[in-house]
Amino acid sequence: MTTPEVRALLFDVFGTVVDWRLGVAREVEALAARRGVALDGGEFADRWRARYQPAMEEVRAGRRAFVPLDVLHRENLEGVVSDLGVTGWDASDLDELNLAWHRLDPWPDSVEGLTRLKARFIIGTQSNGNVALMVDMAKRAGLPWDVILGAEVTGHYKPSPRSYSEACRLLGLLPEQCMLVAAHNNDLVAAREACGMRTAFIARPFEYGEEREAEPTAEYDYAASDLVDLAARLGC
Amino acid sequence: MTTPEVRALLFDVFGTVVDWRLGVAREVEALAARRGVALDGGEFADRWRARYQPAMEEVRAGRRAFVPLDVLHRENLEGVVSDLGVTGWDASDLDELNLAWHRLDPWPDSVEGLTRLKARFIIGTQSNGNVALMVDMAKRAGLPWDVILGAEVTGHYKPSPRSYSEACRLLGLLPEQCMLVAAHNNDLVAAREACGMRTAFIARPFEYGEEREAEPTAEYDYAASDLVDLAARLGC
Repeated sequence: MTTPEVRALLFDVFGTVVDWRLGVAREVEALAARRGVALDGGEFADRWRARYQPAMEEVRAGRRAFVPLDVLHRENLEGVVSDLGVTGWDASDLDELNLAWHRLDPWPDSVEGLTRLKARFIIGTQSNGNVALMVDMAKRAGLPWDVILGAEVTGHYKPSPRSYSEACRLLGLLPEQCMLVAAHNNDLVAAREACGMRTAFIARPFEYGEEREAEPTAEYDYAASDLVDLAARLGC
Repeated sequence: MTTPEVRALLFDVFGTVVDWRLGVAREVEALAARRGVALDGGEFADRWRARYQPAMEEVRAGRRAFVPLDVLHRENLEGVVSDLGVTGWDASDLDELNLAWHRLDPWPDSVEGLTRLKARFIIGTQSNGNVALMVDMAKRAGLPWDVILGAEVTGHYKPSPRSYSEACRLLGLLPEQCMLVAAHNNDLVAAREACGMRTAFIARPFEYGEEREAEPTAEYDYAASDLVDLAARLGC
């Protein structure tokens, strides 16, 4: 049996396509400066991100009905503010800072890589971010998505199996015709094991600020240094 | 109270952005010629389209669970084939012809109009077509959507009130920040009355082949002769 041709590339976004840490840290530090608070934006970003998986796990485990990531981010932000003892930020400050996730910058290769890949494949988001977040980010950063899929459209947070299978179904494609592109091994392994998607690993050694190891820990269809490299490997 | 600025334009697609009748008729006639059947492609397209609203009404009225438009189209196609007594078309012929709706051509102004509008607004589909249909159509025709919304994403066929309100909610916008762009009065009136969206009427006098009256029958925020004219009226 021949493997069917890949028709769609579905992308993890936070960390794979955009640099969440730098973008969040920048807005945290700007707000802190305006309010006369001293804090480390990178540490704040890391603490905010550390609450991301536990918050989604409440939904994945069925202990909480699905709510969009903007809601989880807003709750998690209050937790970080409390943990760090930050004072003087009012509700409208927090509402505005919560939108920092809508204003993240792409990695330097992302727009070129996506544009080249789009000429040959359907390119879509398969992110835990909600629709408004993904649309706002794409408009600002020039990310040329064909389609916004992901948690809010499928109703399931990654790495739940249905987050992957529903995305393929919505495109009218078999899982083998869809490739998840991600910088995170657990995401890729879940997409392949739970759903049968093809997989491409992208190395993002600076996702957490300081350079760190960014190696594939399993066998994937492709492993690339960035999205332009992936485009080249796929003949785009 | 000032009216908030429009942020997103949401488009009806069949008839407003693409010429469904000509595209369907063309594929019907090509299949008929290959199978040695004599029939009028335009009449076939009209009969197929005539079954569209009654099929969706079963879902809207709650007598049937939501199924994507591809499924309704496929069932309706069998009905037309049966009504016209067409013989010699097998299941794979019908499967392939059903995808004619994925391969419709845009009206001559659509790509330029959408491209200009996209520079200033979020542009999205708010169609009863399913995600795969909209994505395939957009890739083939070059329709530069920011986001694919509509029946399969919201779970509701137009003109159900929730088909409109859910689309606005997914964008994180108030209905008054979203404008429905459509060639059909009933769609526009429902979007405004049921949900409070802004409205723009587009004249498509050739939607049903022969020229016919295409006038707004209610008051809308805008009425334009095509999508390039709408772009001009909106200062794009």
